This record gives sequence, structure tokens and C-alpha cells, in this order.
Amino acid sequence: MTETKRIEPRTLKGFRDFLPETMIPREWIIDTARRVYRSYGFAPIDTPALEYLEILTGKGSDETDKQMYRFQDHGGRWVGMRFDLTVPLARFAAQHIGQLGTPFKRYHVATVWRGENTQRGRYREFMQCDFDTIGTTAVAADIETALVIGELFRALSISDFTIRVNNRQVLTGLLERFGLADRSTAILRALDKLDKIGREKVADEMIAAAGTTAEQAGQVLKLAELTGTNDEMLVALDQLATGSETAQAGVARLAELVSATKAAGLPAENLKITPSIARGLDYYTGTIFETFLGELPGIGSVCSGGRYDNLAGLYTKEHLPGIGASLGLDRLLAALEELGKIEKVSTPAPVFLAFFEATRLNDYLALASTIRRSGIGVEFYPEPKKLGAQLKYADRRGFKLAVVIGGNEWESGTAQVKVLATAESHSVPLAEVPAKLSELLSAAR
Amino acid sequence: MTETKRIEPRTLKGFRDFLPETMIPREWIIDTARRVYRSYGFAPIDTPALEYLEILTGKGSDETDKQMYRFQDHGGRWVGMRFDLTVPLARFAAQHIGQLGTPFKRYHVATVWRGENTQRGRYREFMQCDFDTIGTTAVAADIETALVIGELFRALSISDFTIRVNNRQVLTGLLERFGLADRSTAILRALDKLDKIGREKVADEMIAAAGTTAEQAGQVLKLAELTGTNDEMLVALDQLATGSETAQAGVARLAELVSATKAAGLPAENLKITPSIARGLDYYTGTIFETFLGELPGIGSVCSGGRYDNLAGLYTKEHLPGIGASLGLDRLLAALEELGKIEKVSTPAPVFLAFFEATRLNDYLALASTIRRSGIGVEFYPEPKKLGAQLKYADRRGFKLAVVIGGNEWESGTAQVKVLATAESHSVPLAEVPAKLSELLSAAR
Repeated sequence: MTETKRIEPRTLKGFRDFLPETMIPREWIIDTARRVYRSYGFAPIDTPALEYLEILTGKGSDETDKQMYRFQDHGGRWVGMRFDLTVPLARFAAQHIGQLGTPFKRYHVATVWRGENTQRGRYREFMQCDFDTIGTTAVAADIETALVIGELFRALSISDFTIRVNNRQVLTGLLERFGLADRSTAILRALDKLDKIGREKVADEMIAAAGTTAEQAGQVLKLAELTGTNDEMLVALDQLATGSETAQAGVARLAELVSATKAAGLPAENLKITPSIARGLDYYTGTIFETFLGELPGIGSVCSGGRYDNLAGLYTKEHLPGIGASLGLDRLLAALEELGKIEKVSTPAPVFLAFFEATRLNDYLALASTIRRSGIGVEFYPEPKKLGAQLKYADRRGFKLAVVIGGNEWESGTAQVKVLATAESHSVPLAEVPAKLSELLSAAR
Repeated sequence: MTETKRIEPRTLKGFRDFLPETMIPREWIIDTARRVYRSYGFAPIDTPALEYLEILTGKGSDETDKQMYRFQDHGGRWVGMRFDLTVPLARFAAQHIGQLGTPFKRYHVATVWRGENTQRGRYREFMQCDFDTIGTTAVAADIETALVIGELFRALSISDFTIRVNNRQVLTGLLERFGLADRSTAILRALDKLDKIGREKVADEMIAAAGTTAEQAGQVLKLAELTGTNDEMLVALDQLATGSETAQAGVARLAELVSATKAAGLPAENLKITPSIARGLDYYTGTIFETFLGELPGIGSVCSGGRYDNLAGLYTKEHLPGIGASLGLDRLLAALEELGKIEKVSTPAPVFLAFFEATRLNDYLALASTIRRSGIGVEFYPEPKKLGAQLKYADRRGFKLAVVIGGNEWESGTAQVKVLATAESHSVPLAEVPAKLSELLSAAR
């Protein structure tokens, strides 16, 4: 290999590697999400990264179309890389729902790609963790979606979060009453920006882009700015909804959601009726969710979703209503890092076994096996280097405990168990090493 | 949406969907592999699906180059989709090893793409589960690789498997002795086919493609066809290796591997010195592994790998030796299905909760929460349909137990817990439902 032939090792623009320090908490969040989804009966599926281009185009927005990675494959077929998990779910459901039956509850954890502008600090490859209940309009599915979101954060040891909930029917019904039914998309799109740009600019946009009067814009904003406890909000919304069946149905569903989530154990402070959230996407028709972290509201929603009327109308005449939500994995991970809730370690095993006495290789390996069979992960250093270098390696990787056994100690049948954070050391009979490790690891938790 | 505008829902040629029935065991295998890798201190990493084309081309074979999905991205850069996890690992190591330090132990579970000929029943998208130890030539890493493979199959409840092990140095050293050092690649490529095409055709290929004499081909085949216990093989190989330092070093390493894996608890019958395995890939230089299932040897190796001298020479002048192996997830899953070792269920939750009494929605949801908090997954049916239809759904999905509570039963505080496989039914006080479910699930295991 000559110098001149070497290729610079680098990742593609807009893409990144995940090193162990980041990948370990990332896997932890994914595992936690999967465990919660499974506990509610959501089943895993997977779909191809590549789809026929006609399946993917025109299903998101003009922007997703433009950002989609697309090319001709070896057989001359035009293909695209999936840009979300909803369009593949729609195609999947249209294709298999006869076999699967309804209600069909699935989760899907997978990578998606979008050729976004990287100047905004965005990556072009990211992972989504979606769950959906398809084939039912029952309120129980709406309630369960909120419960799953709540349980997810509880399982991630986050208690200070708010699921903001609204119902598109409330918005739609009231816009009808205000005489704005035909302009609802433009109005909701403006309303969705309330948090970001403030009431005046939203009013301006409603007047300019949706052609409302200043009074109409004021009515919509008054609705959006209602505040109070959930019970107070329900009373206020109920009054506003008088005369609109659609709005009343939406308010009734919100009332059921508040009541049932409480009965099922979701703390009342974690759910908040928020009439201003609209979710930009046109396809939501009922309950909608966004989730904010109490300590970092500024990063935006970390778990969003809602109810839709017809998932797969582009591919099948079968009518498939449903509800679901998507965990923003990378955003949540960034938030947890910022909040200092992520321990920086580079090893998934808590225990380090030093290799001290070269002639005792088989004994070290046998001990490592014994420790693992007791359920404790242990990394064995492969070379009998100087102990100092090995312990430095162990410290840098973030092991909790180190086991050191020298030549004499093999003779006498004892091991040194070191707590790396405090440098305290315990002399332990070899046979008791797994129990001691277990005890020290429990204490460290 | 008009009829005429509908798009046929179909997967791209050579690609497939994973429905829950297949995805559940697939996730189980992946989770098991990750758990085993982690218990040895291998840490997770991830790399992008897309790489600069120059990173990927010319690193595998002409075939992988030809099969690679490639295109120009929005910025006009030529990119390729990764076709394995080894080339990305090499690029990753070259880029980050200074920060990571050595030894560096990583696992990587990710999707790769190859535009293979689908007529051979191959898919163009599949998942690899690799683990590698980089930056050390120590025999401990070779031994640990064998132990990880053994532990992996044990954790998958497979005891009848054979890790076939060989050492390239034995082959290389003996080819030198036979005067065939300059033709080793062609000879090893022929030898690799021994299982598939038989001794005569291998001899023919050695003569035709590698230019050996018939006698030389005979010598190589005699080596490849040695049989006996590992101890007998070591004696025989040791005799053959006399006069070749390279071959002797290889035999010595095989001896250490046999001795240490036994000491560490790998049953002797799961490891077999097999001089005929050569692994087609040029970059292996020492210990090589293949793993066969005792009940299905015909499907080929389900976990293969070996030692290499220099992982990342194309990208860095740093010398990075290492050893690793790759679990053939899809092949293994197909094998387990063929052997009837995969239970066909479509739900990851064992318990089904029927929705019987519409006015009691909140009570059902509260009970479901209680069951989940006791660590048992439960799916609640979202609509108060006829019980027969609900139980049919539960049966079809593969739930183990169903909980049924009617209106009177809410009054009296009892539930019916049904074992779906046997139709036996237990009347249980509501407060004791989680304990009863736990008892019945333990009994079913």
C-alpha cells in the first residue's frame, strides 16, 4: 500500500458516525421505547429502505419530494429512499391488512433519509420510532396513545414533561362557526407558529395568507390562547362549541381522554389541553399530540402525532382510520445530554478484568465466564500489559469496577475488586467475586 | 381520491416487508446477539448508510462493486449504499481510532444493500450483526471470538452447533513447504469449495486455475481431509508443520484456542479444528471461523469470521490488526423456522384484555395499567365488540392468556382468566389478576 493511494476517511456531508459514548444511550432510548410499545401489544414490523419512487412521491410535502434521495437501480427502476415511516406504513397496510386484520397495532424503529439543508444543523439521516393503531376510530386508541407517550417518558426517568393535546374537530368546528371553514388549512398553518412567532405575526399571516378579517383572526387567537386547568378548559371549550356538532364531538373526546388517562395512572400534570396546537400536517383529523420537556421546552416537541381518517387511500379503497405518534429520538437524546441525564461511558459492560499474569490466561478466561453467567458483563483485557496502562484504559472507557488478580493471588485464591470512581479496593476470595461485584454494582446505582 | 389515481402497493423487486410474525423472532435474535456482545464489553457503533463512493469502491470484490447501489446526491457527490459493515468499520477506525484508543471492541447491527441476482432467492437488503476486536494481535482476542460465537448459540437455545476453526498460517506455511506460496489465493479459493463440489473437482481446479501438479493438489487435499479429535488433529498438524515456522505458529495458536475455550466453558464438541476451511476473502491472515448447525449443515455457515492483519490500510498508515465475526441473521432465522424452533405469534404481549362493558372503559384501562406495572404486557381491545369476535382476534394474534370481565363481574370484583391454548378458565378476584397471570405464564414456559 503506497502513501499516495490512501483515501481520506470521512463521512458524507450531512451524515455522522455514532461512537459508543453516543450509541449506548441511543440504544437505551430505543430499547426503552420498544419495551413500552410491546407492553401495550404494539408489534414490530420492518419495510425496505428503498421503495418504488411512485410509492413515495407526492405523499409528504413538496419539500420532502425535493429532499428525497432518488435514483435508478440496476434494473432501470426509479427508486427512492424512505423519508419517513408513515408513507411506508400506508403502503404496507394497503398490501397486508387483509392478512393482518384490524385493529392492527405496529411499531417501527428505522432510519430515514432527507437531503435537508445542513446549514440549519440538521442531519440527512435519522432514526424514527413510530407506533400506530390502525383500523379503529375508538376513543380507547386515542387514550392509549397518550398513555404510551406518558409511560415512555416515565420509563426514561423523565417526570417533568407535558403532553399537549388538542382535537382537530374542535378547531374545524369552530372555524366553521367563524365562517372560515374553507380557509382552515392556511389558518391552522399560521396557528401552528404561535409559539415561535407570537400572536401579532400569526394574526398578520391569517389576514394575509388566509384572507380573514382582523376580527376573525382575533376569534381564532382567543380560542388558541385559552388557559386554565383541563377541567376549566373543557368548560370553556364546551361553551364555544355550542352550535357546532363537530366541535362538540371534539370536546367530548378531549373530556374522555382527560378522564381515562387519569384513571389509568397518568399524572394529571403530564397532560394539558392546548387549543393552539394544530400540527401542520393536513392529514390529522381528530386528537393531536405534542410533548414538551419541562426543563427544555425550547427544543420543541419530542413526541408528536395524532388521529387520521384514512391512512392508505392512495393505495387501496379500504378505509383505514388510525392514530399514532413518533418519538423524536435524536432530539430527545440531544435534550437528555444537555440536561446532563446521560452518563458518558464507552462500554456497555460494568466490570473490567485485568490480565496480569501471562501464564494464567485460561484461569482469567474461566473467571470471566463465571462472572458473565452470573449476569454481569465483563471485559477482559487481551494483553498482559502493565497494570497501570490497563487501569487507565478501564478508567477512560468508564468501567465501574475492576478485578485484578496477580500471580500470588491465583495461588492464594483471592482477587482485588476495585471501585474505579473512588479507588477503594476489596480483597475477595475468588469464588465470591461474582457476588461481590453484584453487591458493589447494586450499591453504585 | 378517484379510483384511477390509485397506486399499486408493492415492495421493490428483491426487497421484502417483515410482518410481526417474522419480525418478533428477528428482534429476539438481534437482542440476544447484542446482549451477548455487550456482556463481553463490545460497544455499539453506527455509521451512515451512505458513504462517499470512493470509500466503498474497490474494497470488496468486483462483484460487490458491480452490485453496489450508487448515485449522485443533491450536491452532485457520488455516493454508494454500504454493502457490508467491514468497509465502514475500516473507514470509521481510520477516522476515530486516535480518540477511541485500542483495543477497540465494537458491535454493529445494521442493514446493508447489494443488487444481487434475485433468481437465486437472494434479497437485496439484509441485516448484519458484526463484532470485532481491533488493535491487538493477542490470542486472547481469538479465543474470545470463539467464546462469543459459542455463547451466542447457547443464548439462542441451540446446543447442536459446530464452530469450525482453522488458521490461515497453517495453510500458508504448508503451501510454502509444498512450493505453492505464490499460488495460495487460487488454491485457497478452490479449497473453499471442497464441501460444495467435492475433492475431484477441487483438484481439477487447483491444477487448472492454480497450475499445481496433481501431486501438489493431492498434498493440499490430504491436509484438508485430515480428521480426528482436536487433540489428534493438533498432533497431525504439528507433524506436517515441521520445518515451517509460519505453520508451526498457526498450529500453536490453534492449540491455545482449543485449550482456553474448554477452560472457559465452551463444550469441546462445539469447536472443531477443520483444516479445509479457508474463507474466500483474501484479507484473513490467522484464525478463521465458520459455524454450522448440527441439524441443518446444508444451509452453510451461520456465523463466520477471522483474524486480519491490517483493517484500514486504505485509509490510514496506522496498522490496525483485529479479529471479528458476523452473524448471518437472515440465514439463521430461516434455519430456526425450518427446524420449528420459532413460535408463530403476531403479538409481543402475552395477555389480551377484552372490552366487554362499554361503560367501564376507565376501569379496564386502569386494570391494564396495573397489569403492565407488574411487568406483564397486555393488549386492550379498543372496541366493546362481541366477545366471540374479540377472542377470535386474540387467538389469531397468538396471545397466551385472555382476561374477560363482564358488567356483573365488575360489581362482584372478579375476572375470568382464560388460557387460550386449552380453553381452561379461572375465576380470580380483580386484585389478584396480575399474580394469577404471572403464575400461568410461568407455568406455560
